[in-house]
Amino acid sequence: MVHLFNAGPAKVPDTVLKQVQSEFLNFAGTGISIVEISHRSPEFTALLNESNANMREILEIPDNYQILWLAGGASGLFASLPLNLISSKDDVVDYIVTGTWSKNAAKEAENYTNVNYVVPIPSDFTGVPLDESMNFTSGAKYVYYCDNETVNGIEFPHTLKTDGTIICDMSSNFLTRPIEVSKYGAIFAGVQKNVAPAGLAVLIIRDDLISTERLHPVPKVWDFKLQAAGNSCVNTPNVFSMYVTNLVLKHLMENGGLKRFCELSTQKSSILYNVIDNSNGFYSCKIEKDSRSRMNVTFNLTTKELEAEFVKKAADVKIEGVKGHRSVGGIRASLYNAVSLDSVNFLADFMKSFQKDHE
Amino acid sequence: MVHLFNAGPAKVPDTVLKQVQSEFLNFAGTGISIVEISHRSPEFTALLNESNANMREILEIPDNYQILWLAGGASGLFASLPLNLISSKDDVVDYIVTGTWSKNAAKEAENYTNVNYVVPIPSDFTGVPLDESMNFTSGAKYVYYCDNETVNGIEFPHTLKTDGTIICDMSSNFLTRPIEVSKYGAIFAGVQKNVAPAGLAVLIIRDDLISTERLHPVPKVWDFKLQAAGNSCVNTPNVFSMYVTNLVLKHLMENGGLKRFCELSTQKSSILYNVIDNSNGFYSCKIEKDSRSRMNVTFNLTTKELEAEFVKKAADVKIEGVKGHRSVGGIRASLYNAVSLDSVNFLADFMKSFQKDHE
Repeated sequence: MVHLFNAGPAKVPDTVLKQVQSEFLNFAGTGISIVEISHRSPEFTALLNESNANMREILEIPDNYQILWLAGGASGLFASLPLNLISSKDDVVDYIVTGTWSKNAAKEAENYTNVNYVVPIPSDFTGVPLDESMNFTSGAKYVYYCDNETVNGIEFPHTLKTDGTIICDMSSNFLTRPIEVSKYGAIFAGVQKNVAPAGLAVLIIRDDLISTERLHPVPKVWDFKLQAAGNSCVNTPNVFSMYVTNLVLKHLMENGGLKRFCELSTQKSSILYNVIDNSNGFYSCKIEKDSRSRMNVTFNLTTKELEAEFVKKAADVKIEGVKGHRSVGGIRASLYNAVSLDSVNFLADFMKSFQKDHE
Repeated sequence: MVHLFNAGPAKVPDTVLKQVQSEFLNFAGTGISIVEISHRSPEFTALLNESNANMREILEIPDNYQILWLAGGASGLFASLPLNLISSKDDVVDYIVTGTWSKNAAKEAENYTNVNYVVPIPSDFTGVPLDESMNFTSGAKYVYYCDNETVNGIEFPHTLKTDGTIICDMSSNFLTRPIEVSKYGAIFAGVQKNVAPAGLAVLIIRDDLISTERLHPVPKVWDFKLQAAGNSCVNTPNVFSMYVTNLVLKHLMENGGLKRFCELSTQKSSILYNVIDNSNGFYSCKIEKDSRSRMNVTFNLTTKELEAEFVKKAADVKIEGVKGHRSVGGIRASLYNAVSLDSVNFLADFMKSFQKDHE
């Protein structure tokens, strides 16, 4: 058995994988595979509607929000969000940069509008900024932030405090804790971390933000207005990923819902942070304690050589996916919903034993 | 057994489906599923490189062309092609509109540049225009056409004759006949017709067209230059669909290659066109004979009621996917590579028997 800590694409629940396999040649009694079925068939429409209903139930999404399924992942939304939301050349948007992904999003938004950096971009990312340090723009079109920075292992402990319209990238902590959707203008996520196979993003957006008053032309496949009217089927969507998404949503509901997975995520990440904090500096995590991610536990060993040895020895006992992102190095264990407590305990034991052997 | 004539998503070879199913929990001996594997893993990189090599071999792609795998399907390319290729506000592009998809592509291009319609848009689509009727722009940035119109059932009998740089949408006849790639500036296709599960497009583009001199900002996930440099992994790609694509490419090579599938496509479509032409008007195809598609055989019965009855009775004998596109009505049978001769003969027999019963 492999203990998989991939940052995304990542672990999918075993029961879901087995169901996909068992019904792969015969979807919903049609006698054909899910990968052959038309996105305009009654069977797929039923699936999509069920998936939307499940998502609405799990996140308690109010009626005045739409759920859109889009191509191009979260990175696609870095462009399509300003393209859809900016209506005038005088618009200003606020970006809070706390890591790699929010920085990329802000850079992409600069192509389309006036970007104000709510706090200066730090030279190194170690935590979320203090509330009082944030310099919001009065009348900003929206305030953007990334709830969990996958590369850096930085997570906002709670919803941003602002009177502005919040646009939040939840790619790597989506569906891992209860949230109050009405506090956000829009939430989006690539599905390949806590949900399903890569190649799909979900956007939950308040009705009044879906407009046709736009400064720039919007590519049809990313046109929120068109996709909302067309039930996310304006162009041929990623049918397979939408199908697995629905299975994962059902799995989540059957296993205790957001509250249970939130508890588990705190429990799992605490196990690793405790090993780090009790290692007398053998392991170190540079992220400030109140910004430490429940999803991506990042840490360093004392040398690069030791880090390489850690990754190698981990692979020997079938611990996979723990090499840090190539841009920052170090070690990263991603603990998404489908990663079991057993796997986390196994990794914690390995860390302790590795320390004993290499101290 | 279902005889599936879906227009896309569509039939995938049975042997490929069975292979996907059998190795779904353990990709390439990794002990994890293909949907869990990292797009930066050596196993996935090997898969992608093999897939590119196979594509290059099958289509005999010259070295000065890149193969890119992109999100957003062919419809995404309706926007991303002009975004990447237009470098000045004085640029002009030529579009040949022969059906629904080339019309959509031209409309989308109008958002970004000056579009010249090489022939006037006809009120009804019944064939490809005569060579001598085409009014090309001298110095046009590119000449765009759709090799096979899926909705209408119209196919160019041969590569367009022009001195211009050809951009060709081959979504629905990709990999169904040998082509001379060097005649094109770029070829693209959504994979969900002749290749693999939906949610992925392939672009084969000549090096000199990949530029950073661009009039409009290009969304990062659609930036040809970046994606070429990043081996189509600038953002997380649709790993699963890329995996199935490679299996289908291998299946194509093992079963006679393009030449064999081209012969088969002519044979399969001729069977149906013969039934139509010998039906004394019970069935009628309005597409001119030299423009009739080998991929999408479109036809009408004498009344809408009879067409509905045809679809219903077909379903009774497990013939699925033959209802025409909602925008044009009628009947459409899509005969992509994975549709067997047996299924086509079965449909032909059904058509004859239906005629006998309803004449």
